[in-house]
Amino acid sequence: MLDTYKKYFRFLVKYRGMFVLFVLMLTVLGVINAINPYFYKLFVEALPEKNYQTILNILILYVGVNLLETGIDVIVYLLGDAVILRAARDVRERVFKKIQDLDFAYHMTNSSGSLISVLKRGDLAYFGMFHELNGLYRILVHLILMLVMFGAINGQIAWLMGASFVISAIASKYLLAYNLTTRKAFNKQEDNVSAVIVDNLINYETVKYFGKEVKEQRRLSKAFVLWIKTLWGFANSFRLIDIVIGLISAAGLWVVLHRTFTLYMSDVIQFSDFILILGFVTSF
Amino acid sequence: MLDTYKKYFRFLVKYRGMFVLFVLMLTVLGVINAINPYFYKLFVEALPEKNYQTILNILILYVGVNLLETGIDVIVYLLGDAVILRAARDVRERVFKKIQDLDFAYHMTNSSGSLISVLKRGDLAYFGMFHELNGLYRILVHLILMLVMFGAINGQIAWLMGASFVISAIASKYLLAYNLTTRKAFNKQEDNVSAVIVDNLINYETVKYFGKEVKEQRRLSKAFVLWIKTLWGFANSFRLIDIVIGLISAAGLWVVLHRTFTLYMSDVIQFSDFILILGFVTSF
Repeated sequence: MLDTYKKYFRFLVKYRGMFVLFVLMLTVLGVINAINPYFYKLFVEALPEKNYQTILNILILYVGVNLLETGIDVIVYLLGDAVILRAARDVRERVFKKIQDLDFAYHMTNSSGSLISVLKRGDLAYFGMFHELNGLYRILVHLILMLVMFGAINGQIAWLMGASFVISAIASKYLLAYNLTTRKAFNKQEDNVSAVIVDNLINYETVKYFGKEVKEQRRLSKAFVLWIKTLWGFANSFRLIDIVIGLISAAGLWVVLHRTFTLYMSDVIQFSDFILILGFVTSF
Repeated sequence: MLDTYKKYFRFLVKYRGMFVLFVLMLTVLGVINAINPYFYKLFVEALPEKNYQTILNILILYVGVNLLETGIDVIVYLLGDAVILRAARDVRERVFKKIQDLDFAYHMTNSSGSLISVLKRGDLAYFGMFHELNGLYRILVHLILMLVMFGAINGQIAWLMGASFVISAIASKYLLAYNLTTRKAFNKQEDNVSAVIVDNLINYETVKYFGKEVKEQRRLSKAFVLWIKTLWGFANSFRLIDIVIGLISAAGLWVVLHRTFTLYMSDVIQFSDFILILGFVTSF
């Protein structure tokens, strides 16, 4: 797994300056995204006083932050594209070169169809990894900001929230390992289906000449039996993630909000803090 | 465009019962998702009175709805998979049959490489369309529920919100048409790159025999020049969507919240209504 990330970053390192700038702007975007629930607190505090100017200022700030978010979002994507588009090309060229350097023996024992399927998947995986890692990074920024804000209100709530995240993270580790196993099983069948289709395209004239179209279609249908079965296994591994993480999140939600509630009832925290915490746990 | 949707639904119709059930559950999920901001209103109303039992009940309801959401989410995906996995297989088998039925002439004028690239893209597009349409449907459910709730508070706010959505929708129509144009240009280059790679795989022995590896790599690099250029065009068309829709949304946000604010100042709407509306426009 670590090796995969190292290979992944090796292609990004070539565009280092751009990549660092990208991560910087992504951090800013993460913070702006995460700050939204803070406006609940501001509004809850300002509204009862009915001071026209104060509320109007918060409103202008809120819409201003929203506009800023759009602007930074565009910049983040532009910077990200500047890195990933070139890196994706580099990956494909490297793989192509690797294939050129392989000897005959390797090529002979693998059908062109499954090789092509593997190549295509490699492309998608690289783009996918870029988006997933960026998504994870934004969650991390969000989490840190949330813990800092909760900590400022009450240490206990921050600890409870943190603990619920650690438990989720540990569960995720095992769930993702299982998800990867089912994915590998599916990939094998996907390559098999691709092999049938590509073989047919390559040997198209022969199939036509001997009138074997129906036989070829039956061959494909047969390949699809295991394809569907393993695809179900892969899809259901996501359902397992949904269920386990969903239950852990609900338990975390209950513990954090119930604690917030009792702290509010004993006047340790304010009304506006309750709404701020609610805003954060809802937005996450 | 309409023709594409007709073709898309033709493959789903085969699993009609399951598909109807899926849409039904998706609607329920959309409503439960959308109802979240309503809890802000409940909390804002209940908290100042400090009635232990009332607040606890809202808290239990809130976590209960969260759990229900997880459960229905899993069911929606199971039903969706039951339809889409089979439909995707059917699509691929149909395309395969179509290729078998084509005559020699067609096959001879198209390289196997670009045909394979087209096939692969077709697979992904079908899955993609399924998720996009479901996403759009959920937004629609969210929008309707929001307009109903806003309407219950104040008709003006509902109309302003609705108008901002209509303007976004009209802009989206033109933006998506442009997005499609840039995508088509990119697809052509993607097929071209695939053709170079697949040709090389198929004629591998010849390339090796004559020692033309470097020439092949140069051929690929050349194909990548237009590939990167059209991919930038495609990527930037998304940035254009972000900017235009972002500006329209910010304008809508300002108009709706400013109106809510003035209505609150003149005591037409309650404090809790302000927070409910804020919750909705933030969650959207």
